[in-house]
Amino acid sequence: MAVYTEVSDEELLAFLARYELGALLSCKGIAEGVENSNYFLHLESGYFILTLYEKRVAEDDLPFFLSLMEHLSAQGVSCPLPVRDRQGEALGRLVGRPAAIVTFLEGYAVHHPDAPHCAALGETMGKLHLAGEKFGMSRANALSLDGWRALFASHAHEADGVEPGMAALIAAELAALEEGWPRDLPRGVIHADLFPDNVFFIGERVSGLIDFYFACCDAFAYDLAIAVNAWCFDAERRYVPAKGRALMQAYHRIRPLDARELSSFPILARGAALRFLLTRFVDALSVPEGALVRPKDPREYLAKLKFHREIKHVRDYGLEL
Amino acid sequence: MAVYTEVSDEELLAFLARYELGALLSCKGIAEGVENSNYFLHLESGYFILTLYEKRVAEDDLPFFLSLMEHLSAQGVSCPLPVRDRQGEALGRLVGRPAAIVTFLEGYAVHHPDAPHCAALGETMGKLHLAGEKFGMSRANALSLDGWRALFASHAHEADGVEPGMAALIAAELAALEEGWPRDLPRGVIHADLFPDNVFFIGERVSGLIDFYFACCDAFAYDLAIAVNAWCFDAERRYVPAKGRALMQAYHRIRPLDARELSSFPILARGAALRFLLTRFVDALSVPEGALVRPKDPREYLAKLKFHREIKHVRDYGLEL
Repeated sequence: MAVYTEVSDEELLAFLARYELGALLSCKGIAEGVENSNYFLHLESGYFILTLYEKRVAEDDLPFFLSLMEHLSAQGVSCPLPVRDRQGEALGRLVGRPAAIVTFLEGYAVHHPDAPHCAALGETMGKLHLAGEKFGMSRANALSLDGWRALFASHAHEADGVEPGMAALIAAELAALEEGWPRDLPRGVIHADLFPDNVFFIGERVSGLIDFYFACCDAFAYDLAIAVNAWCFDAERRYVPAKGRALMQAYHRIRPLDARELSSFPILARGAALRFLLTRFVDALSVPEGALVRPKDPREYLAKLKFHREIKHVRDYGLEL
Repeated sequence: MAVYTEVSDEELLAFLARYELGALLSCKGIAEGVENSNYFLHLESGYFILTLYEKRVAEDDLPFFLSLMEHLSAQGVSCPLPVRDRQGEALGRLVGRPAAIVTFLEGYAVHHPDAPHCAALGETMGKLHLAGEKFGMSRANALSLDGWRALFASHAHEADGVEPGMAALIAAELAALEEGWPRDLPRGVIHADLFPDNVFFIGERVSGLIDFYFACCDAFAYDLAIAVNAWCFDAERRYVPAKGRALMQAYHRIRPLDARELSSFPILARGAALRFLLTRFVDALSVPEGALVRPKDPREYLAKLKFHREIKHVRDYGLEL
């Protein structure tokens, strides 16, 4: 949660003059997103979010993210729609940073999702994967298997400080995943970060998805595996079969998983757990002293990884397919 | 700017159930206010701000602040209006903190106000002072003359670290103000913190006032003196007569200043400058290492104090009354 860059009213008014959105009525910095600065805007023509992209988002990737949101919106997936200025540009510059205005999305994040929320997410994710099919751009997943070893290498010696034995476990896991990682699964555009923070609900209905800044091209089932990790464990880090079943079966009804996707699911879930274990572990090491951002506990994903290692068959997740 | 307290969707939904405001459609933490946690709420019935009062606001004072906002709204002063729950209470509790919902106020803070903004503020402040007349509650100004000496005493030895000679200057100033401070000026409810952050504009029109958490009963002209300090100097800390004239004369047209108020204005302006010099000085000393809140430079108010000390007559502020 953050506003890293302050925008003065003069800078904002000059930036807004490039758009046909009417007069500024209100602007408030919002405490959302750890990567960018976000402002809530009320303009004569409606409600919007202004995002200033800070250095953690590669500027070269922005056209992919913004075009994807346009494509998905056009396909009926509810997500923020980038607004183009009078010159037809969705991306501008403000206070020396790339900046974009997107439509405001109603809804709120659900902190403790129940099975009905998981089912609603599964259905939405299925539609998301289908909607991405004709999207013309591509972006590699920088945080997949190839990236993990590099990420771990520079911090391996600090891993046992998180939990004794973690270094050896990660090393063994990397080797196993490199050996067994499925390379030929159905793939396309995935969100790659569909945590509860990024899925808005109104009641038990998904009102939309936000934060496409990890979106990339990868296996659809890997996206589902990320979501199972993020949504289907309880506060004590125990897997909740009713949630996993709700999520995966709702997905399967929209976009049926094939036999290879089902048989690969346990290893994809291990990979997804390792990916967030590694990034949380590295992020926790690099938090500046006294910073207000509380790093997330990497051990949450260590526990999840250990759970998935014991899974022999996808039906152990509680599926009734 | 801050959200000090995180509110889960479950806690929020339970809190909102006490109100007749319709379903929750959106909630975003906003980066505004250094004292409290603020959330932007979209409910079926409209847009609101939810405030959780953190420890810097005394809970006993909250009924004064909330009742004042109700009173002023009823008198036609545009400010957030506290919303009462089904039991008729404007103040509730959320996540263990006092909490209130107020109406959302359109407009945005102007970072570099020009003379027309100052004139608009002067008119609004005149109306604010008149509107407070029949308000039945009272609250002493904890940050007036009596409070300043105590505030300074505990940190006097650190003052020369801000600027050599500051300790002696403040000591002399405290003595002079105690000697000459006017005690019998027209008084009533004042805002006491009408900085540009707390005055919303749409274009050059004041759309409303926010942040009444320093409001108290004191001399009206002292409120005006605070605003002259906050609005009528340029970035190089030089007084801008055109802004001071615009602010004070616009005020005078709504609520004419009497002879005593005019002759006391220079000493009130010195007192107002000293008040913010002292609080900024003390706040700067107590910022935790690495905190994201950047303390404001106390030397800005030292420069303003020195300016006011040289003023012999209110007309030196550029007035044409």
